[in-house]
Amino acid sequence: MVASTASDVLALTSELIGRVSVTPEDGGCQELIARRLEAAGCTIEHLPFGAVRNLWVTHGSGSPVLCFLGHTDVVPSGPASDWASPPFMPSIRDGVLHGRGAADMKGSVAAFVLAIEALLRDQPDHPGTLALLLTSDEEGDALDGVRRVCEEFRHRGQVIDACLVGEPSSAKELGDVVRIGRRGSLTANLRVMGVQGHVAYPDKAVNPIHRALPALQALCERQWDPKPYPDFPPTSLQIANFNAGTGASNVIPGSAEVQFNLRYSPHWRADTLIAEIETLLRTHGLNFEIHWHRSGEPFYTGEGRLRTAVREALLEQLGRVPDENTGGGTSDGRFVAPLGAEVVELGPVNASIHKIDEAIDLAALEALPGLYRAIAQRYWVA
Amino acid sequence: MVASTASDVLALTSELIGRVSVTPEDGGCQELIARRLEAAGCTIEHLPFGAVRNLWVTHGSGSPVLCFLGHTDVVPSGPASDWASPPFMPSIRDGVLHGRGAADMKGSVAAFVLAIEALLRDQPDHPGTLALLLTSDEEGDALDGVRRVCEEFRHRGQVIDACLVGEPSSAKELGDVVRIGRRGSLTANLRVMGVQGHVAYPDKAVNPIHRALPALQALCERQWDPKPYPDFPPTSLQIANFNAGTGASNVIPGSAEVQFNLRYSPHWRADTLIAEIETLLRTHGLNFEIHWHRSGEPFYTGEGRLRTAVREALLEQLGRVPDENTGGGTSDGRFVAPLGAEVVELGPVNASIHKIDEAIDLAALEALPGLYRAIAQRYWVA
Repeated sequence: MVASTASDVLALTSELIGRVSVTPEDGGCQELIARRLEAAGCTIEHLPFGAVRNLWVTHGSGSPVLCFLGHTDVVPSGPASDWASPPFMPSIRDGVLHGRGAADMKGSVAAFVLAIEALLRDQPDHPGTLALLLTSDEEGDALDGVRRVCEEFRHRGQVIDACLVGEPSSAKELGDVVRIGRRGSLTANLRVMGVQGHVAYPDKAVNPIHRALPALQALCERQWDPKPYPDFPPTSLQIANFNAGTGASNVIPGSAEVQFNLRYSPHWRADTLIAEIETLLRTHGLNFEIHWHRSGEPFYTGEGRLRTAVREALLEQLGRVPDENTGGGTSDGRFVAPLGAEVVELGPVNASIHKIDEAIDLAALEALPGLYRAIAQRYWVA
Repeated sequence: MVASTASDVLALTSELIGRVSVTPEDGGCQELIARRLEAAGCTIEHLPFGAVRNLWVTHGSGSPVLCFLGHTDVVPSGPASDWASPPFMPSIRDGVLHGRGAADMKGSVAAFVLAIEALLRDQPDHPGTLALLLTSDEEGDALDGVRRVCEEFRHRGQVIDACLVGEPSSAKELGDVVRIGRRGSLTANLRVMGVQGHVAYPDKAVNPIHRALPALQALCERQWDPKPYPDFPPTSLQIANFNAGTGASNVIPGSAEVQFNLRYSPHWRADTLIAEIETLLRTHGLNFEIHWHRSGEPFYTGEGRLRTAVREALLEQLGRVPDENTGGGTSDGRFVAPLGAEVVELGPVNASIHKIDEAIDLAALEALPGLYRAIAQRYWVA
């Protein structure tokens, strides 16, 4: 590892953190990165959609297409006075770099840039295409970000064979956890209708809470996966919000609102879950309305070139053997997988993401460019 | 029936309506009534407790003690602009008197006064004690109203043998429904505790909604009365409010708040219901806190002098045979019953109570004094 890379990645990460880029803002991060990589010999394509900026950087051509994937937007900081140092002023304390985006995920984005520059210096004739895809809306609605870009890529026949997502996957130390897939996410807003009335006259009312209970219990008790799906946690339904009632203790309300979320394995798709659940509700005789919000389908990367490359690079660079799983939330990798790509996520420790005093360990930051570079190198010789 | 009584009861009802007396205010109603009945030969005792005014009027002495029971307070009107005529300005339209308290229950209170005056004119040597008990807090917390007065009566050994409550019991026509008892009412505020977490990590959380469902379903499905209690609707539990969740679709909340109410037959008391339900919740393994609000125990008046007198008076005065039941909400009669009294409730049609444009049919109002007088007369000869 070249010593100057350490301070280079810290410098670029700090520069990016200082550019305020709360979703869907980009704060000029992509422009800065585009200029650097263009100077390094890459082809630049800006793909703005709506208010969102997306950047597609490529070098080389043909197969395989190996893509680093990340986002330049960050979640809001909350009141700056809650932070020990200003959220958009990168600050180093006790071997740790603080700032909004330090872990999620400006450190990884900077590391991608440094890795690409090093790869192009050492292997200008590398196999296939080396790419970087960045968006300024991963944290928000995410309609005009990578989802939209991949629709465009499908349209134009742009293939991606392997995608390394820099989201902070790690639990305690860099590389202890690697995501090899993600569950789907589906949210239901259910309204169960009854007839409002006075508690003293229950025969003139229909209590929607009472009516809903058996159906909700069936949903909660249901074993959704007929058998465990390898590498996936069991499909799980969680009721997140339940609101019914006028506030008065003597009124039977006219409706009940229930919101539940499912994280599901590749045994299901959104359509099949929706059909199953609506059938269950009808079978219980409920009078209901339901609105579904599809966050994303599951994806899974089986054993192959990319997982092997990631495993070998971690062992070589950090002496670490990762836990490869599909836990946690989701990532933009779910939009790239349907293009046929192997998708693996590897990034810093995620303990502080979305919180105050977000941070990345300096030693981990310094190790990132070399780690990403090693993954590409091993992928190409596989 | 004396013709002048008609305009007398209308005049007094109108006077009372015009005296704004939203709980716990009395608006000077009791003072006005006290002066009239003192002039008619009664003994007056004011029994104020806290902010509440209570009036105890008696004539005669010894057994039996026959008491008319009512309240001078009214519920708020809501925005006066919602009413067709100002709520505290008695207005006659289409044979109907409008105003807050017209049906609940200033018409009945005025009719009591007129009935007592007529009874004292015709039977100054009537048997036992004739009494009138009024409070200015029936509609609210009701801690310092009749509940408190009866505690005082228990303390001083004041007996009441029969109590005619003037609450609006009727459904469509005056006297079509008479209450011969009331169910108890008990409200629970239940908090089920869990552990807050992210929907993607259900193993690190405990969903209090999921935990609560089986117990709540058991409560809803339970047949509370081992067999029907004569003249009482089945004991019923109704969940009135259910609130859980942070609003976010990806957060498992840390607690769930459930409020339910029971209307119960004399098969139960508050203590036995509380013990039963807390045992059920513990048996379901819930981590919970529960706070109980006891509104009142049930009471029941079996066949006897007062029910017979009411039935005969209705037949004589209105040619009507009432439905005698224990439905609806509750009344202050529940505080008098434990003194050993037969308690019956008979009053105007209740369709408009607590609503805008509250009203009483003028013909019904004119019939009320004679009806109450006939009940006393028949009670005394029974």
